[in-house]
Amino acid sequence: MSLPSRVRLVEVSPRDGLQNEPGPAIATDIKIELIDRLSGCGLRHIEAASFVSPKWVPQMADGAAVLAGIDRVPGVAYSALTPNLTGLAAAISAGVDEVAVFAAASEVFSQKNINCSIGESLARFAPLVERARAHGLRVRGYVSTVLGCPYEGEIAPNQVALVARELYQMGCYEISLGDTIGVGTPLKAKRMLAVVLREVPVGRLAAHFHDSYGQALANLYAVLEEGVAVIDASVAGLGGCPYARGASGNVASEDVLYLLQGLGIETGIDLTRLIETGWWISRKLGRENGSKVARAMGE
Amino acid sequence: MSLPSRVRLVEVSPRDGLQNEPGPAIATDIKIELIDRLSGCGLRHIEAASFVSPKWVPQMADGAAVLAGIDRVPGVAYSALTPNLTGLAAAISAGVDEVAVFAAASEVFSQKNINCSIGESLARFAPLVERARAHGLRVRGYVSTVLGCPYEGEIAPNQVALVARELYQMGCYEISLGDTIGVGTPLKAKRMLAVVLREVPVGRLAAHFHDSYGQALANLYAVLEEGVAVIDASVAGLGGCPYARGASGNVASEDVLYLLQGLGIETGIDLTRLIETGWWISRKLGRENGSKVARAMGE
Repeated sequence: MSLPSRVRLVEVSPRDGLQNEPGPAIATDIKIELIDRLSGCGLRHIEAASFVSPKWVPQMADGAAVLAGIDRVPGVAYSALTPNLTGLAAAISAGVDEVAVFAAASEVFSQKNINCSIGESLARFAPLVERARAHGLRVRGYVSTVLGCPYEGEIAPNQVALVARELYQMGCYEISLGDTIGVGTPLKAKRMLAVVLREVPVGRLAAHFHDSYGQALANLYAVLEEGVAVIDASVAGLGGCPYARGASGNVASEDVLYLLQGLGIETGIDLTRLIETGWWISRKLGRENGSKVARAMGE
Repeated sequence: MSLPSRVRLVEVSPRDGLQNEPGPAIATDIKIELIDRLSGCGLRHIEAASFVSPKWVPQMADGAAVLAGIDRVPGVAYSALTPNLTGLAAAISAGVDEVAVFAAASEVFSQKNINCSIGESLARFAPLVERARAHGLRVRGYVSTVLGCPYEGEIAPNQVALVARELYQMGCYEISLGDTIGVGTPLKAKRMLAVVLREVPVGRLAAHFHDSYGQALANLYAVLEEGVAVIDASVAGLGGCPYARGASGNVASEDVLYLLQGLGIETGIDLTRLIETGWWISRKLGRENGSKVARAMGE
């Protein structure tokens, strides 16, 4: 039992939260205001965009305009997902502070999600990481399906550790472990983490847990107990539809922050302003607020 | 770290779940079918009714008819809330297997909720417990507001322990610790529990945690780690409105069961049938299903 005294929250709503939003394109100025409100809450790491083909993810087509429009707050890292060298070049032009690459722990998920094997994705990322670092950019590595895959079911912790190690050795400064479909439970999360820790130090790991089955906070508490001190979350639980089968179900930043505050863990984030931001963006998108803390505290 | 190998789930939906349901009275045959479906899922402890003045809780006016109508499954304990000797007499006539009394850890909450001080409530319960036991009935004691009060805010763990001890020494076989407004977080729950454990052994305690702030499963995991092996929950999260301020927000039995299964803890309950039961009652009440597991798995 060794809870960290401080946790860094990585706010993924502008990217992971909005990328699958149905309906017409979300206006660029709404994305810009969301990001500026989030930095105003005290968040110091915001995933702002994805430089991926607009053919695949039309909601992310305006990444350069978003990055150009925000008020850059000193000390805040604005990052973007970059699936390939084309995306990296666009991200560099847009002036991001860091980039992220996205691998899977499941072969079938990798094929279905990014159309290549795990090995092929890692081979593609290696030169990307090298070039990003040559430009002075830090690179974050995501590993998805670490606690289960919609196609393969159970995923061996060894497989997660292998992919995490490859990304780490490639030069990623942090590996974010994603329970993409939210099927994990606390012991499963701890067991997976224990195996990954043989390859990557705990200070280089982040937990990216989805709440599709309501387990995210329990799982986060379990890995906090093991010393994980970086958590990915999305204000108002943006991302996927919370009531649809196969929902992506990002855990709500407000609920994570409430947990952390209750545990006496410092984050530097203002809960009241974060709740206001969650209500603001939920109204803008005409979307139910996915944060229970926000609903309990009221608008 | 000593998770129990087996947990008893106390299903409170027919009482705690339905008592505040707005609108017209829920038909007695729906309550009967709900209880019979729950016993069919493998639940072995079902809080079936409340023998309280129908003036105060009109939804519970048909307790005797409910108890008379159900199929009694051998080995299942059908219990009822009994606030006073009149209620106890009615519960005995109805043939319940056990009764429950309800005290608060907060003086103000006690006054507002049951119109008397904590001391007065305990004095009223003492002869009730004695008479119930003389009739061969077990008595369960609830303590509410153990992790916070809507009027007083913080509640001292000593105060919780004091009320729990009184109920235990009075003859209650089990003390259910209620986070009535769902404001608790894991360390707070553990600290409260540690103080209560000075007065009541862990085998005599139950956790009754609400999910208003999304923290219930994290808190349950925390107290499971301390050996608590009885959990109160409500199918489909019935009880209060999940989206209203001050929502009661019972934690959904399906989500608790999913957690327990993931932890390798035996319960004897069939998750698939429980999910079906949650969807069935949600449809009957025209109510959103409050279980994330149910929503993720689909109807």
